[in-house]
Amino acid sequence: MIDKKLNSVRVGVVGCGYWGPKLIRNFQSIPGSDLQLVSDLREDRLEHIRGLYPGVKTTTDYAELLDSSVEAVALATPVSTHFQMAREALLHNKHVMVEKPLTRSSAEAEELIRLAEERQRILMVGHTFEYNPAVEYLKDLIAKGGIGRVYYISATRVNLGIFQKDINVIWDLAPHDISILLYILGMKPTQVSARGAAYVQPNVEDVAYVNLHFPNGVMADIRVSWLDPCKIRRITVVGSQKMVVYDDVEPNEKIKIYDKGVDSPPYSDTMEEFRLSYRYGDITTPAISGAEPLEIECRHFLDCIRHGRAPRSDGHDGLSVVKVLEEAQLSLRDSGMSRTINW
Amino acid sequence: MIDKKLNSVRVGVVGCGYWGPKLIRNFQSIPGSDLQLVSDLREDRLEHIRGLYPGVKTTTDYAELLDSSVEAVALATPVSTHFQMAREALLHNKHVMVEKPLTRSSAEAEELIRLAEERQRILMVGHTFEYNPAVEYLKDLIAKGGIGRVYYISATRVNLGIFQKDINVIWDLAPHDISILLYILGMKPTQVSARGAAYVQPNVEDVAYVNLHFPNGVMADIRVSWLDPCKIRRITVVGSQKMVVYDDVEPNEKIKIYDKGVDSPPYSDTMEEFRLSYRYGDITTPAISGAEPLEIECRHFLDCIRHGRAPRSDGHDGLSVVKVLEEAQLSLRDSGMSRTINW
Amino acid sequence: MIDKKLNSVRVGVVGCGYWGPKLIRNFQSIPGSDLQLVSDLREDRLEHIRGLYPGVKTTTDYAELLDSSVEAVALATPVSTHFQMAREALLHNKHVMVEKPLTRSSAEAEELIRLAEERQRILMVGHTFEYNPAVEYLKDLIAKGGIGRVYYISATRVNLGIFQKDINVIWDLAPHDISILLYILGMKPTQVSARGAAYVQPNVEDVAYVNLHFPNGVMADIRVSWLDPCKIRRITVVGSQKMVVYDDVEPNEKIKIYDKGVDSPPYSDTMEEFRLSYRYGDITTPAISGAEPLEIECRHFLDCIRHGRAPRSDGHDGLSVVKVLEEAQLSLRDSGMSRTINW
Amino acid sequence: MIDKKLNSVRVGVVGCGYWGPKLIRNFQSIPGSDLQLVSDLREDRLEHIRGLYPGVKTTTDYAELLDSSVEAVALATPVSTHFQMAREALLHNKHVMVEKPLTRSSAEAEELIRLAEERQRILMVGHTFEYNPAVEYLKDLIAKGGIGRVYYISATRVNLGIFQKDINVIWDLAPHDISILLYILGMKPTQVSARGAAYVQPNVEDVAYVNLHFPNGVMADIRVSWLDPCKIRRITVVGSQKMVVYDDVEPNEKIKIYDKGVDSPPYSDTMEEFRLSYRYGDITTPAISGAEPLEIECRHFLDCIRHGRAPRSDGHDGLSVVKVLEEAQLSLRDSGMSRTINW
Repeated sequence: MIDKKLNSVRVGVVGCGYWGPKLIRNFQSIPGSDLQLVSDLREDRLEHIRGLYPGVKTTTDYAELLDSSVEAVALATPVSTHFQMAREALLHNKHVMVEKPLTRSSAEAEELIRLAEERQRILMVGHTFEYNPAVEYLKDLIAKGGIGRVYYISATRVNLGIFQKDINVIWDLAPHDISILLYILGMKPTQVSARGAAYVQPNVEDVAYVNLHFPNGVMADIRVSWLDPCKIRRITVVGSQKMVVYDDVEPNEKIKIYDKGVDSPPYSDTMEEFRLSYRYGDITTPAISGAEPLEIECRHFLDCIRHGRAPRSDGHDGLSVVKVLEEAQLSLRDSGMSRTINW
Repeated sequence: MIDKKLNSVRVGVVGCGYWGPKLIRNFQSIPGSDLQLVSDLREDRLEHIRGLYPGVKTTTDYAELLDSSVEAVALATPVSTHFQMAREALLHNKHVMVEKPLTRSSAEAEELIRLAEERQRILMVGHTFEYNPAVEYLKDLIAKGGIGRVYYISATRVNLGIFQKDINVIWDLAPHDISILLYILGMKPTQVSARGAAYVQPNVEDVAYVNLHFPNGVMADIRVSWLDPCKIRRITVVGSQKMVVYDDVEPNEKIKIYDKGVDSPPYSDTMEEFRLSYRYGDITTPAISGAEPLEIECRHFLDCIRHGRAPRSDGHDGLSVVKVLEEAQLSLRDSGMSRTINW
Repeated sequence: MIDKKLNSVRVGVVGCGYWGPKLIRNFQSIPGSDLQLVSDLREDRLEHIRGLYPGVKTTTDYAELLDSSVEAVALATPVSTHFQMAREALLHNKHVMVEKPLTRSSAEAEELIRLAEERQRILMVGHTFEYNPAVEYLKDLIAKGGIGRVYYISATRVNLGIFQKDINVIWDLAPHDISILLYILGMKPTQVSARGAAYVQPNVEDVAYVNLHFPNGVMADIRVSWLDPCKIRRITVVGSQKMVVYDDVEPNEKIKIYDKGVDSPPYSDTMEEFRLSYRYGDITTPAISGAEPLEIECRHFLDCIRHGRAPRSDGHDGLSVVKVLEEAQLSLRDSGMSRTINW
Repeated sequence: MIDKKLNSVRVGVVGCGYWGPKLIRNFQSIPGSDLQLVSDLREDRLEHIRGLYPGVKTTTDYAELLDSSVEAVALATPVSTHFQMAREALLHNKHVMVEKPLTRSSAEAEELIRLAEERQRILMVGHTFEYNPAVEYLKDLIAKGGIGRVYYISATRVNLGIFQKDINVIWDLAPHDISILLYILGMKPTQVSARGAAYVQPNVEDVAYVNLHFPNGVMADIRVSWLDPCKIRRITVVGSQKMVVYDDVEPNEKIKIYDKGVDSPPYSDTMEEFRLSYRYGDITTPAISGAEPLEIECRHFLDCIRHGRAPRSDGHDGLSVVKVLEEAQLSLRDSGMSRTINW
């Protein structure tokens, strides 16, 4: 036990709402992690955590955590607090993992990146889906040409609740899809537009549609809603040779690869000769590891700390997603006007 | 048999491609219909029809049908021919049922309406879904306040193929959703925008997203694609009190009514008191008649002829859908710029 | 047209209830078929058929059909009439296709086989699923060792109605599964037992369970019911290397091949070393032809007549299924006692 | 904290395989529980538990737990050890909760019941499904006549693995269905038969079919298998007025009530007049609490201890299930011969 702790990273988790307890569970159980302190403003949440993990120390004072010997801080607090809390952690020379989205603005994200580089600390954003084995599979499949040229992607991420009070549904749900798209395509969008409406809370959009244009004519469309009777997490990737559906709600068949497509003949002399040939081939559902993405993410954070490596979802990745969100937000306020993103 | 034919409407069907044979089957079997002539430019298609219905007369010459004693013409020809062929039929004093969309432009639709009124003939457009018992159910449910105030509607109509050569996917698939929306909401949209892309055929969009704004803040979003591995026909209607999913692919459970919603409290003094209460109630799947919508539509056409009544999906209804398509098309060409529709 | 009819087989269809009209539609439209006469006791059903196919001749007198120039008779009448009507047709030197089950007893089936051989006529039973492309695929897959050694098969065929008045649910629904099992396994069962109960009509079982033992330790279990809220047609074939689910209700993914299994190690020294290794591999959904099985069956019947070949589902095949049903019936009456079948 | 522990029940959990950790998690977190000791023969499993719950004491010696101040013991050990370990616990005046099935024989179960009564200790069996809100709902619905007279029940509980080494699939999986059936019907079966086969391990059946007859003509059929590619947990209850499907794999729609049925008319003069009328009404999916059944069960155990009440799933309930299993096992060995159960 002593040896184990000697080599372990001393971790503190901040925020015990919906997501924090999942981080706590992981940092409590994965090897190489020494969960030393948990912080939240609400004493009742801390008491709940102490009930689950009798040995864990807690505090309602974030400053206490900053002044402790904790080396790495994982932040699962409201988005509006991300920048300030991550900044303080970096200023106290802590490594930081921040829940998505990284910040409320690209300027804030850039400031955190600068600070992390200056202090030579790890800055990581919790883009959990980049650690999801199904998303990994999809990225590899596309990269090796397994679906031909990517045409377009349609994503749907809807359910009833959980409403946020400080951000709208785009900032809450779309970061997942945007980080997935950037990751599997290996490209950044050049144009973005967004439309939406606020029904339950004034001025907080609860349903929205985001449209993205990537290089090479790739288009993507994202539907997000807190106001849908069904939980849907579905991404369809259509390529020139195959089509893939990634359904994250499916317990076992998360990825389905359809050997389907349409071929246009090389030429046709007249309109009368117009013909398209359709391929309706096999469907393959690859076996995908059932490992918990968040556990992979937490282990990756500790590995990056130990070996001084840049995380897969580093500050720059977090900044990219925030820039897209920022422009989507401007488009939303401007009736869906297209906006060019300057990278 | 003789009596039956005396009281029957003499019908001619034009076009034996994908949809025409379904019209032929219905006009062949429903009471009060006397299918006298079938027309198509391709002799092989006519031979196929004669094989199925040995007694049926056929012609490759539309003029022959116009000059015949046929009283009612059903057109299932390419969209680009609708206006000219319907016009000629009306000029020959025939009643006309035209497949959706009614025409390629609102000017053409208006001309057909004018002509039908002048000649006192029935002009009907084949908005089949307005005769679908599930859509009827949905319209009634909304009308009687069964889901509270309508917030927004999300529609998805995608599958692989069938590509059209003379129209893009919006003109091919979206008429269904637009006619359903106008019908169940009893309102016309005031704003429309559309985005899309053409992957298989140059300049013929095979995937598109259409966004509509209706009075009272109702928003609708329609996804259409000829390039999707799955056949999806799904419309989600979200109301303030209940939410409904209409899934036309489901054989038996087409409509599901979710007693789900979010209530915001009348007031909250501080942000800390922010609370939304969620309702997760029963789901009800009403028994819906399994009657074939096209049969109901064909019977309705004959009834309107016999009793001189305006059809549910009359020329004005057809015009409304064409106007939305027209503006959507302009928005599509203009990078998704919102367009106001003047009714 | 004349040439076509010269080479065609003159067909008569008897019975216009649920199944007959499907036969009529096929014999009306497939090449090489000349549907000459349709017979039913009920004039209203014949009128309905004449409405659908204006040129078709009909009669309420089976004798008229027997005395006509019809060469081949397709019987879709109640099971209790099969033997007598097929016998008369053979005695009039007609080829005969009889709906499943072939007869009410094996003695009757043997008599029909004898008569057909004597008269050199084709005797075929309508085991439609033997002409189903998905079942074909399954048979081929098993035959080429694609799932390893077959362990066992579980079949479920349930829905609400259609109740028969002259036979119980085993005689009505189980012939499908029994003919499928014999066909895909290429073996006949050596033991059968059945349990069931009659709830709606006295002494007419509406739910039953049939258990079969085949050579090589293969077991099969069939659930049939007219009293189930869901329509299920599902057969699971478990092999030593792979497992297959054939779901006939699925529109597109009828066959799923699971690369799943359990391997027991060659030996284990102690119980403590007990280990089984599980394989959770890919799932493959092969593209299966969407051709209508009944059309394939009807074409096959005509081909066999033209070339004097024995049909895939000949009298012997029909007899095998009847023998299993017969013994299942005896077991049912005897509280599920196992019965050996002597072939 | 001190007060809380004073009123708490001191609990020990034995067995840290598949199920034990779930018990530990619950006894660790529910109020009124003071988890004092965890026992397992394998030190590595105990180390794993200590990693998850740093404060928990562990031992590889069951005697230590018996001699400790623990008041209540929860046994999640192999079935073959249940009797001996539960007996020792009772002899040490501990309350006992035993995983299902209670014992390997009814004689053993009776001995435990006798001992618990003598020592005035709580004896409870872990029939988890009796604490499942969906099963509760079903029991209430039947009890209040909500589906009319119960006709029959079909249950399927299949998946790939987990193979047991000391019991066959009937003893492993069927206890769930048997306890559910006895609970929702409020009756015990009078007859049982079972068939099965062993494919992976000699003499350990991995697939089996159990048939039960209850009073009033109610029949039930249970399919269990460790060798199926799909995880299915589905129980269909067919009543004279409604039909219910309980699908435990469904995340949200566990219970569906179908207003479907068949009515036979009061009389029919002739067979020709034979008619049955079918009802195809609405489907209702009631909102069911998502509470964890095991947590409800663990709380119930502690409540029964505190208030000296007999648990819902007491020793007698455990004995009933064991008796059915015992007779099913005898039937299995006797080729499915029906066996009468004497209660």
